Amino acid sequence: MNRDDAVDLDRTDPLAPLRDLFELPEGTIYLDGNSLGALPRTTAGRVAEVVTQEWGRGLIESWNTASWISLPQRVGDKVARLVGAGQGEVVVADSTSLNVYKVLASALSIASVDSPERRVVVSERSNFPTDLYIASSLCRERGYELVLVDSPDEISGLLDRTAVLMLTEVNYRTGYLHSMASVTALAHEHGVLAVWDLCHSAGAVPVDLVGAEADFAIGCGYKFLNGGPGSPAFLWVNPRHVDRFEQPLSGWMGHAAPFEMSPGYRPAEGVSRYLSGTPAVIGISALECGVDTVLAAEAYGGLPALREKSLALTRLFADLVGSRLPGFVIESPMDDARRGSQLSLSTGSAASGSASAGAAYAIVQALIERGVVGDFRAGPADGTQPDILRFGVTPLYTRYADIWDAVDHLVAVMDNDEWRDERFWTRGAVT
Amino acid sequence: MNRDDAVDLDRTDPLAPLRDLFELPEGTIYLDGNSLGALPRTTAGRVAEVVTQEWGRGLIESWNTASWISLPQRVGDKVARLVGAGQGEVVVADSTSLNVYKVLASALSIASVDSPERRVVVSERSNFPTDLYIASSLCRERGYELVLVDSPDEISGLLDRTAVLMLTEVNYRTGYLHSMASVTALAHEHGVLAVWDLCHSAGAVPVDLVGAEADFAIGCGYKFLNGGPGSPAFLWVNPRHVDRFEQPLSGWMGHAAPFEMSPGYRPAEGVSRYLSGTPAVIGISALECGVDTVLAAEAYGGLPALREKSLALTRLFADLVGSRLPGFVIESPMDDARRGSQLSLSTGSAASGSASAGAAYAIVQALIERGVVGDFRAGPADGTQPDILRFGVTPLYTRYADIWDAVDHLVAVMDNDEWRDERFWTRGAVT
Repeated sequence: MNRDDAVDLDRTDPLAPLRDLFELPEGTIYLDGNSLGALPRTTAGRVAEVVTQEWGRGLIESWNTASWISLPQRVGDKVARLVGAGQGEVVVADSTSLNVYKVLASALSIASVDSPERRVVVSERSNFPTDLYIASSLCRERGYELVLVDSPDEISGLLDRTAVLMLTEVNYRTGYLHSMASVTALAHEHGVLAVWDLCHSAGAVPVDLVGAEADFAIGCGYKFLNGGPGSPAFLWVNPRHVDRFEQPLSGWMGHAAPFEMSPGYRPAEGVSRYLSGTPAVIGISALECGVDTVLAAEAYGGLPALREKSLALTRLFADLVGSRLPGFVIESPMDDARRGSQLSLSTGSAASGSASAGAAYAIVQALIERGVVGDFRAGPADGTQPDILRFGVTPLYTRYADIWDAVDHLVAVMDNDEWRDERFWTRGAVT
Repeated sequence: MNRDDAVDLDRTDPLAPLRDLFELPEGTIYLDGNSLGALPRTTAGRVAEVVTQEWGRGLIESWNTASWISLPQRVGDKVARLVGAGQGEVVVADSTSLNVYKVLASALSIASVDSPERRVVVSERSNFPTDLYIASSLCRERGYELVLVDSPDEISGLLDRTAVLMLTEVNYRTGYLHSMASVTALAHEHGVLAVWDLCHSAGAVPVDLVGAEADFAIGCGYKFLNGGPGSPAFLWVNPRHVDRFEQPLSGWMGHAAPFEMSPGYRPAEGVSRYLSGTPAVIGISALECGVDTVLAAEAYGGLPALREKSLALTRLFADLVGSRLPGFVIESPMDDARRGSQLSLSTGSAASGSASAGAAYAIVQALIERGVVGDFRAGPADGTQPDILRFGVTPLYTRYADIWDAVDHLVAVMDNDEWRDERFWTRGAVT
């Protein structure tokens, strides 16, 4: 395998035209779409239209004339097509963190009736922190114990006393991909509700919420859905649960008839009751442009085709690291069935001696200076897991040659000791 | 008073130049800035810059290089100058509804320690519904009773058994303006915490949170702060309370060190702990442009000058209604000290006979067809309060001649029976 082979793969890649849906800066190899997806070509124009025409000229009437009021459901229906949910089952609203609060609260309400003796919520210690922070808050509030496992193998032994199992389908650090169907089935066998975080899977991995019979799901708008920085998030509730309970963040947009202005709350039928405040019109409109980029792939085989390319890209990355940078440790599963759309590395023996602590951060910075944008994720403070260099692949726009070039730059960063330059060791507010 | 007099008032109005800060459609008299503020001239350009440059070119690095990460605090500091809060005491985040949840939860946590025997939250039945829905949810969750009063006079009699008093400074229907300082002082005399909703006062009425020694406050970004449809909201916590408790929506952005990615939550010092998910970068950036329009008034006397003009505008409106449309009932207080930045009418004897029910809605629609944009707010289902025609004045851009013309159009709508046209009786999804 050499660079020409990679260029040939791009030349024959049936998904290659999808890259034209994005504005990508010249000279940058962007491998961080799992943290912030790239800008779709349509977004700036659509946002300008919303601001200048709908808001500026339409003013308050645009709630009706531009259908602002139904944006959460309309864009939710588009997201639904990407995560195996039915039409009318998804809404776009708020942030991932707040949506975790809503669905976990609902799951606990159900469990408190269906299995009141169970007082445990299970998740993974390596789950994305905000999920754990929110779960911890709710568990304290409602008298549940949050039990964190260090390996998926520990889950089954806990299920008989568990009320809710809350997992992220693709781990943000390693890219480990759970089998949603089999884990959910296992949970249900033991009478446990399954809440899934799709932040690193929606738009990158085929998801089948209905097929898996999952109970609740939430996900992020600004990663593989390309919705822009701080984009609104989404949530899905299995129809069998949706009308059983109110969710606690019961703002007026979740009311059955918000404009009755009644002092008493009456929840909307269905998933609309998971809305809270006034919809973020500009943000949801930008998200719609992002979701449309993934839906555009339907003409090219859709998520299965994206998934196939994603796996080929991360496999190529791993092979090249294995042959050219043997000191690095691949922290992502190399079983295709267990790997999301990223490749994570730790420095292993590649950054030796006294400079090894913190090297992962400096290497990521040195790569950024060369135009290769991945990111860094700190290992936990207890030192049980290493710091990570994280490289997301977005098959809508990532090319095989990008992977070849990224590894080539990484070789240069290491061979030239560029990462030892002290300017790469100063951390920004956001790492 | 005739139209020329109104034009003369505009000609000598020292605040008149501020109107140029906005893009206002030709031929529209916009009297709904209390529902959705008009578009500032700078917003489209700033939003385009955020989308095209910061996101499109800067990509993930803009969290540091464009200081996205500090937007909640930076724009919060600007809002703080408008509501009498200290620097570092306000953050911009989420929606009004969610911020009510956060601050009321904190207030209840404090009350549960300081006055555990008190199990009542008091608010007004005419408070904006979302505040009541959220309060109702929290009260149920935590074992409190939500008591709603029909008149401010009833409040004092309840305070000895009350934990938290939650009021909106300016009533959304009538524009009734509480005295924040005296009501807060009364609450404190009785050991009650005071939570203030500033949705209809921030940017329109001088607010002095620190001077009033209020306990908590929240407010809206898309009304008098001109932040755009569904703009993020803000919240303030009195420094004496801010570090006492965690708030329950404890997402990662409220963590002391979010990028440590620690599984355990450790709240940030100060008001930043009231952040939850990833900041809505585009929405907060648009809000900043809106807040800047109000800050621009500082060169013209600031909020006291805006307030003086607002009162003159609503006074003029009321005088003209009194002389030209005596059938209408003015539902807003005519005591200047008790009136916010709006004038609310009910149809009284102006729409008589069988068509009187629903007439307010139809009259508002007929006015909109004439280019006069106010809005309609339904009376409660129990019929104890009438439907309202609501006219907000925004002294940054509302002219005296606009008021004269609006009343003139209203006279025509009534004299010509235009409102009886059936096309004005079909209600949109948003009324």
